[in-house]
Amino acid sequence: MTGSTIFKEATARGHEVTAFARNRQKAVDLLNTQNIIEADVFDITREQLLQFDVVIDALNTPRGQGIGYLHIDMAAHLIHLLRETDTPRIFFIVGAASLYAPDGEQFIEKFKREQGHEEWIDTPQSQVDELQFIQNVQNVNWVAVSPSMNYHPGEKTNYTRNDEGQIIFNQDHQSVLSSGNMAAAIVDEIEQPKIKRGRFTIGDAD
Amino acid sequence: MTGSTIFKEATARGHEVTAFARNRQKAVDLLNTQNIIEADVFDITREQLLQFDVVIDALNTPRGQGIGYLHIDMAAHLIHLLRETDTPRIFFIVGAASLYAPDGEQFIEKFKREQGHEEWIDTPQSQVDELQFIQNVQNVNWVAVSPSMNYHPGEKTNYTRNDEGQIIFNQDHQSVLSSGNMAAAIVDEIEQPKIKRGRFTIGDAD
Repeated sequence: MTGSTIFKEATARGHEVTAFARNRQKAVDLLNTQNIIEADVFDITREQLLQFDVVIDALNTPRGQGIGYLHIDMAAHLIHLLRETDTPRIFFIVGAASLYAPDGEQFIEKFKREQGHEEWIDTPQSQVDELQFIQNVQNVNWVAVSPSMNYHPGEKTNYTRNDEGQIIFNQDHQSVLSSGNMAAAIVDEIEQPKIKRGRFTIGDAD
Repeated sequence: MTGSTIFKEATARGHEVTAFARNRQKAVDLLNTQNIIEADVFDITREQLLQFDVVIDALNTPRGQGIGYLHIDMAAHLIHLLRETDTPRIFFIVGAASLYAPDGEQFIEKFKREQGHEEWIDTPQSQVDELQFIQNVQNVNWVAVSPSMNYHPGEKTNYTRNDEGQIIFNQDHQSVLSSGNMAAAIVDEIEQPKIKRGRFTIGDAD
């Protein structure tokens, strides 16, 4: 959802966008483009990445399958490929569990107190670990992005952002973000960079 | 130093040992063996590792060259190759900076208050980050090993170990370990496993 929505938003603004996909035909059908590089992420090379101004890691793993670790492994592979570079700038979508609640606690800690969390904690925990991994990296030009808690398909309207890792609530005290606003905020950040080696979060504006 | 000493200790005890090396001839000369797989670590495959009972990552990067991140990237690559396995067991040598002082503070924090630390902090900081990365991994059979602060070439004598991450001091309040004792302790742990997904440290016994 995130990758394809960003692809379409950036293309609509006139950027030249290339998708990395494991299956070319599926990507062609989804994105309506021939700008596809067919590759498994772990086979991507430094040379392939260096031709771009911006790279976006929009991996999302299905919950409950125990493969959340791919978030970490994929980030580590991409970071390794880009060590000691400033271009491309690389964006990682890291989930909402690493956001901080108004009481100062990271949401992952709250999640771990919920009954039955063992069945679904793998993906959010892996994304928290991914962010921790990325935050230690000083020689790659990275940005991390957290959506709001309720992140759903939807149109671009207006968004608000927070660069301190604090969760964004709307007037109804809901943490909500549409994919259209996610894509708009990321492409805005690409066009007018405001953050370097930091994380921001996005929420639908009231 | 660590890799070759472990190689010799394990071979002397009758184990069949294979070295991964970027340069076969250098490894042949150093280790006096033909059991060499010539490979850059980032080209090592899952299939190559799965033939072994134990894998040891004994990377050491030279200080002050800004390539300490290779500790993290190499660990991440090896972890990725071994996801969802229990064999081989993999050992990571992670340095002493992540050990805890008697006052409860991790030594890396003390290091960061030393004048001029910017020139040499890269390697110990990277090894601290490496350990943090490894400690999040739940689906690989890993062990992390910290030497003492003064880790030097020397014979096997007697050693002591601590499994709680506390630095080991001798009677003269020195934190000292010979390479011979490091190798002995690691091969002992291989032969009689006492720890799983944990870290231990080793010091010369008085």
